[in-house]
Amino acid sequence: MNSMHIGWIGTGVMGNAMCGHLIDAGHQVHLYNRTRKKAANLIARGARWCDTPREVAQRSAVVFSIVGAPHDVEAVLLGDDGVLTGARKDTVVVDMTTSSPDLAAMVYEQARKKGVAALDAPVSGGDVGAREATLAIMVGGDPEPFEKVKPLLALLGRHIAHMGATGTGQHTKMCNQILIAGTMIGVVESLLYARRNGMSLDAVIDVIGQGAASSWAINTLGRRIAQGDFDPGFYIRHFVKDMGIALAEARRMNLSLPGLALVHQFYTAAMAQGGETMGTQGLYQVMARFNNLVE
Amino acid sequence: MNSMHIGWIGTGVMGNAMCGHLIDAGHQVHLYNRTRKKAANLIARGARWCDTPREVAQRSAVVFSIVGAPHDVEAVLLGDDGVLTGARKDTVVVDMTTSSPDLAAMVYEQARKKGVAALDAPVSGGDVGAREATLAIMVGGDPEPFEKVKPLLALLGRHIAHMGATGTGQHTKMCNQILIAGTMIGVVESLLYARRNGMSLDAVIDVIGQGAASSWAINTLGRRIAQGDFDPGFYIRHFVKDMGIALAEARRMNLSLPGLALVHQFYTAAMAQGGETMGTQGLYQVMARFNNLVE
Repeated sequence: MNSMHIGWIGTGVMGNAMCGHLIDAGHQVHLYNRTRKKAANLIARGARWCDTPREVAQRSAVVFSIVGAPHDVEAVLLGDDGVLTGARKDTVVVDMTTSSPDLAAMVYEQARKKGVAALDAPVSGGDVGAREATLAIMVGGDPEPFEKVKPLLALLGRHIAHMGATGTGQHTKMCNQILIAGTMIGVVESLLYARRNGMSLDAVIDVIGQGAASSWAINTLGRRIAQGDFDPGFYIRHFVKDMGIALAEARRMNLSLPGLALVHQFYTAAMAQGGETMGTQGLYQVMARFNNLVE
Repeated sequence: MNSMHIGWIGTGVMGNAMCGHLIDAGHQVHLYNRTRKKAANLIARGARWCDTPREVAQRSAVVFSIVGAPHDVEAVLLGDDGVLTGARKDTVVVDMTTSSPDLAAMVYEQARKKGVAALDAPVSGGDVGAREATLAIMVGGDPEPFEKVKPLLALLGRHIAHMGATGTGQHTKMCNQILIAGTMIGVVESLLYARRNGMSLDAVIDVIGQGAASSWAINTLGRRIAQGDFDPGFYIRHFVKDMGIALAEARRMNLSLPGLALVHQFYTAAMAQGGETMGTQGLYQVMARFNNLVE
């Protein structure tokens, strides 16, 4: 693959690691981030700073974005100094933020009017997956731009799936988060039951983490709960945002998801208790307090 | 290990396969089942029929039971012609039914008065695990009888764990079922969301079945849902029984488990809809009807 001019917007924990893989592969990266300091390590490695998302787009054939929430996506892509104001015909814009399928469709439409292609491409796999380039990447949008950026995505992740039309990348990510929500309430309630019985959580996980009840969540986050480790892999604040998008989409489709709604409520309590920057396994502490189960 | 005289009560799908492994290992099995016909294959292989659980106990050094529900356990172990009326001093009684920890404690106490040891030893791994002797077996009770029967349990399963005092085997199984309950609502709601969006369930599972959302349930039962296969691995009827025990125990301990309670309600609706002999993945159909999502 020849060296390309690639735009990158968003150099937080995920974006910073991902952008680094493009630099390592020999591409010329043009980047923008709200806080310049967080991009310093990438600039030191040869990335060029831009003052606006527009400038990023003016210099790049493909522009990636991975920012916080849908309103941030809207600002950097559709805003006054946004990517679409600078993008040339045939530019491909790839938004990797977990964001709303509706917004993905809106970006797609506005881009299309300028001859620009837009893909929604949220990821799964967390900070470790970003660092090790083992992310799962779920892509929605037209096949042609997908094929064009696929070699770049392959630098960032291991499982690259084109799910269908615009928005289907985001919808797939919503399926992922809904699945995690249910699994997490199972993990937490199961371990609360064990703790209330005075059992060793690790001994219980040794058994139930194997067969029909096994999951990544019990074997990874369950172990952290057993060790009293509530540090973030994935922030509660971000998970609450994602569940909120899923619930809004479900409501739009007249789809009742009582399990998701319940879990969202308990994670909202986690936010109320000041847990927004805890890892998602912090739900255990919320439910423990709720049950007056003091560690 | 020398050939022993071993009692076996309960030759349903699970018990039949498990008992067969003891026969294959060269032990003389004495068995009882409510319906004699279901034991015919084992009798043909050399097991001896007994007319009552008492008779089983009179002939055996170790007695296993795996029957339907707690009231069946009570009948075969504590009833008029039950195991404890025939058991000799130093007999070990091993109940492998998923049953209540309270009942396990009662059996333990009544057995102790006669010099008989009792273990609760429910299993996980389903019919496949029973056939292939790969079950997880969670044992509660005293260490001495556990060590005595451990070589026999090793003929039935792969992961044999002594969890602690009487009842802790059952409690561990409850942890397992609580974990499955949460995971199942996640699986079902995730796939409903995908279906409502017109997405291929298999394509979605290909992605979300890998990373932080991965579980045995999504990759095994999710695949069956995608194929429209609702045949039982594990009956809804049995799962509802198990969740009922877990909820009763949680109530006794003043432990609020809202996720489990919600899932139990939806599986109760599955029973109302005639799904008691469907596999647990049948929850998908219940929630699909609830959402007027016709396949």
